[in-house]
Amino acid sequence: MTLITGQIERMVKMEYKILNNIKGPEDVKKLSGEQLTDLAAEIREALFNRTTKIGGHFGPNFGAVELTIALHYVFESPKDQFVFDVAHQTYPHKMLTGRASAYIDDAHFGDVCGFTHPKESEHDMFYIGHTSTSVSLATGLAKGRDVSGKKGNVVAIIGDGSLSGGEALEGLDYAGEMNTNLIIVVNDNEQSIAENHGGLYKNLEQLRKSGGKCELNLFKAMGLDYRYVEEGNNVETLIKAFSEVKDIDHPTVVHVHTQKGKGYAPAEKDKEEWHYAIPFNRETGEKVSFGDGESYGDIFASYMLDKIEKDKSVVCMTAAIPGVAGLYPDVRARMGENYVDVGIAEEHAVAMSSGIAKNGGKPVFVTNATFAQRVYDQVTQDVGLNSSAATIVLFSSSIFGMGDATHIGISAMGMFTNIPGIVYLSPTNREEFMAMLDYSIEQNDHPTIIAVPCDGVNPAKYEVAKDYSDIGKYQVCEKGSKVAVLALGDFFNIGSEVASKISEKSGEKTTLINPRYASCVDTALLDELCKDHDVFVTLEDGILEGGFGQKIASYLGGRDKKVLNYGFEKRFYDGISSQKVLEMNRVTPELICEDVAKAL
Amino acid sequence: MTLITGQIERMVKMEYKILNNIKGPEDVKKLSGEQLTDLAAEIREALFNRTTKIGGHFGPNFGAVELTIALHYVFESPKDQFVFDVAHQTYPHKMLTGRASAYIDDAHFGDVCGFTHPKESEHDMFYIGHTSTSVSLATGLAKGRDVSGKKGNVVAIIGDGSLSGGEALEGLDYAGEMNTNLIIVVNDNEQSIAENHGGLYKNLEQLRKSGGKCELNLFKAMGLDYRYVEEGNNVETLIKAFSEVKDIDHPTVVHVHTQKGKGYAPAEKDKEEWHYAIPFNRETGEKVSFGDGESYGDIFASYMLDKIEKDKSVVCMTAAIPGVAGLYPDVRARMGENYVDVGIAEEHAVAMSSGIAKNGGKPVFVTNATFAQRVYDQVTQDVGLNSSAATIVLFSSSIFGMGDATHIGISAMGMFTNIPGIVYLSPTNREEFMAMLDYSIEQNDHPTIIAVPCDGVNPAKYEVAKDYSDIGKYQVCEKGSKVAVLALGDFFNIGSEVASKISEKSGEKTTLINPRYASCVDTALLDELCKDHDVFVTLEDGILEGGFGQKIASYLGGRDKKVLNYGFEKRFYDGISSQKVLEMNRVTPELICEDVAKAL
Repeated sequence: MTLITGQIERMVKMEYKILNNIKGPEDVKKLSGEQLTDLAAEIREALFNRTTKIGGHFGPNFGAVELTIALHYVFESPKDQFVFDVAHQTYPHKMLTGRASAYIDDAHFGDVCGFTHPKESEHDMFYIGHTSTSVSLATGLAKGRDVSGKKGNVVAIIGDGSLSGGEALEGLDYAGEMNTNLIIVVNDNEQSIAENHGGLYKNLEQLRKSGGKCELNLFKAMGLDYRYVEEGNNVETLIKAFSEVKDIDHPTVVHVHTQKGKGYAPAEKDKEEWHYAIPFNRETGEKVSFGDGESYGDIFASYMLDKIEKDKSVVCMTAAIPGVAGLYPDVRARMGENYVDVGIAEEHAVAMSSGIAKNGGKPVFVTNATFAQRVYDQVTQDVGLNSSAATIVLFSSSIFGMGDATHIGISAMGMFTNIPGIVYLSPTNREEFMAMLDYSIEQNDHPTIIAVPCDGVNPAKYEVAKDYSDIGKYQVCEKGSKVAVLALGDFFNIGSEVASKISEKSGEKTTLINPRYASCVDTALLDELCKDHDVFVTLEDGILEGGFGQKIASYLGGRDKKVLNYGFEKRFYDGISSQKVLEMNRVTPELICEDVAKAL
Repeated sequence: MTLITGQIERMVKMEYKILNNIKGPEDVKKLSGEQLTDLAAEIREALFNRTTKIGGHFGPNFGAVELTIALHYVFESPKDQFVFDVAHQTYPHKMLTGRASAYIDDAHFGDVCGFTHPKESEHDMFYIGHTSTSVSLATGLAKGRDVSGKKGNVVAIIGDGSLSGGEALEGLDYAGEMNTNLIIVVNDNEQSIAENHGGLYKNLEQLRKSGGKCELNLFKAMGLDYRYVEEGNNVETLIKAFSEVKDIDHPTVVHVHTQKGKGYAPAEKDKEEWHYAIPFNRETGEKVSFGDGESYGDIFASYMLDKIEKDKSVVCMTAAIPGVAGLYPDVRARMGENYVDVGIAEEHAVAMSSGIAKNGGKPVFVTNATFAQRVYDQVTQDVGLNSSAATIVLFSSSIFGMGDATHIGISAMGMFTNIPGIVYLSPTNREEFMAMLDYSIEQNDHPTIIAVPCDGVNPAKYEVAKDYSDIGKYQVCEKGSKVAVLALGDFFNIGSEVASKISEKSGEKTTLINPRYASCVDTALLDELCKDHDVFVTLEDGILEGGFGQKIASYLGGRDKKVLNYGFEKRFYDGISSQKVLEMNRVTPELICEDVAKAL
């Protein structure tokens, strides 16, 4: 039995006869109907080639193969402009725009990133990685086209999951009053990363069931024209639909029903599991194991489950990415009503958490640091100003494990530590993370943000406090003199090494501090340390500007002390390894020790 | 002829017979139908008393009088919980919850702020001032109620204008899948601050015209139950409608059609003009003039109009607050297609501006700094990462003219100057503002944020550059030695005074610098200055943490130099005068000179 379904079955030994000859979209237009079908099979084969070996977004790409072929067949990119939402479904698009080798030739895997990127191709309009932006970006392209006298179609391609995001809904609403060409393809595969959440998905179901004919229609209610395509994995049908809207003189939605993971039985069956795939065995569907070490996702999920079983006022919240926090289907099921997935709607999640806290609930909203960029205002106004005891847990606020520039979380401290009323905690190890999380949930005085460590799950080397209500009090782990190392969060271990090296070299003990509160300056401690310290070294896993260390430099600015801040220069680190970034910024024990020696 | 319409005409000599006896919502419930009508008249009279004398939000409150009476008549606040969106329409609510004296007794005007505030009353659930948050906050209250075993209704009251905001749309969508009591009152007065923008407003019109009966229904498409009340200024009708939904077991929308400014003819006629009123003559409708000095709003609007008349690729964008930037109806009309109001949809505006720039347009999005808190992610991802040459102009990013904590813009620098790729300009005077705006519009290399000065319209005292493409180059206005004063943006004048005082005192010339780029450190200049300067003083009109001065302190941290940063300690400054905040933070020439003398 093979797990590969449908047409692709016969293509296992692939020569990419068609794909190899596609240098750009113009070559797609030359193909016959049968060749287009074969092209779809070759694209899926190429997707297998890459994803089995190095992983990648799986379901979104397998589901969008025919859609992408039809778009390039009908429209004329780059004169006609495509904006793919999230852009994690653009592997087929890349194959049809001169980048097929990155999928069929292992030696060229490194040629492309996982999203659209203007530096890769003129067919990629924007560098995109966050959800729900495509419609707004497309309205802008349309307006820019019109005011500068250009021609061409503008096409946004947005998945159903992304529709729950405020930016997408704002974009749809604004598009509804435009009087110009704009095509919004809604790629409805009935799934977000996990299951969809939100009332609008009932309407999408009604639309699918009625073949787009039911009167109740979210898109029309937003002022948009609308048409429906049931066979979203049929190239011919799609070509017909897109041909009908090409050069249209007003905004329209083309609602296309596709199948996520189409062409691979395990992915068709378990859409969440196969949204993103790590390398796997194609025949068995088995994924390559990365070892079975404990992860902070597991620690978080297990802690929360236990907590909820004991206290029904605890609410565990996610905005459509439960998997990053270990909230797999079985965990969610056990949490029951105490688990809330708001869909891709981070703003709503934070405001809702404020309301929960105000009525005696204990909300814990968990997300990735990069997506928390959506909630600056909500953290300030809905939560901070109202002193709501909400807990926000940030994963991946770190240089470790970094990938594309779209998903790096190293801005989190600069973003949140300067908002009044917010206590931003940076645990340095497993026990401290759990203690801080527990403290935050149980207190009722202030909102807390907790940055999950990203340097692996390390045990505590120093005593871990249970109570963090003495806001801003740093922990002195080693008391020495002359040099004090303030090593924040998951850079504590680097700081510890720095302190040891300095002590070794100088023969004098170096002070080592775990600041714990990234948002606070422990002025009493610093005043005390000033008596017998000359150099203060700060380390933080984030962009220096706006972060922790600069607060220390400013506080000590008027004294005869030296402050050396280590973190990252402000820039978009794109496709650079963590190690490289650390070296570029002199964040290695050796280089820091060199600098300290000079400063002394 | 009197301008006062309807019932209120006879009430001009008001004794507040009913209102004076309302100590809380329980007293509203005791009133007869006729008394309720008289109460409405008394409330309007009290609104006149306050707004004619000290100004305030006018149209929203006059339109919501009956709605508020009916809410308090039917529900039992605070057991039943109200969340008013924006909360600028809560003057009647305050009158019915023990705070009437703040409207009828001039001596008590200072007792209340312009929004709901939990410190004022247990009937105010949240401190709110930004739009579009009420539904999400209310879903949280509902969830919190349920998980902590409480009872009661949760009622969000949201205006039609606020519906275009992403947070509101996310909230409605999430509410659509809840299975619990939640009532969303949509107070539809057919107007935002200016006219509404967005496709959904066509649907609201269809709903009004069909008495709520048309099949196409945005709220139902979001999964919500729905009912319509045409007579939104009729207490009896409203009481009936609210009684029907009280204790409902699932979320429902009550769409209420009200008249903005109801009860005052000029406000009924010109809704935009009377959204907010400065003190005015009730008989004539004439507003008290604040003098006819030039404002930055006028300067901006006039410049943009001129620019657009010469260059049709320029697009002037606002998110529903055209008035703050001088974009009054006549200006907007003359801008034609080159004016874009996206409605309350800041996220969309920023993403759209990125698209406009990518297609050759020249977008300028103008808003208030406090509302720009909604666009951290869009500035980072949609604009910054894509190097889109969008211009964002921020009004009120300042301590000057500050009011409630909900609307202070002093976080803007901490928010935006640490985002890679963003050039944040802080002009110090009229000419520099215009030069920077012109530079930003004409260049095609980077996104720019410009902070409009807020210390009045001052002329240039030093040469003003036309070209700002040498990113990060500060202007040395006076070259001296020993002490260098880096005075940013609208604190330049304070810095200039500081420099003069130090020079006077010491007999040595003090260096005075206009940094211009709040987002950059001019390392070459600082290195040079280090040769003959010992103390560096920075001044900025913003929260110190994450801002400009701390970047300087960090850069110079490793040297034998002293850096004194002046700005504001991180906290929510609530109802404190600008002058007081300046003094609290030692931002006066005298206090700074004292500190410098100590440091030397």
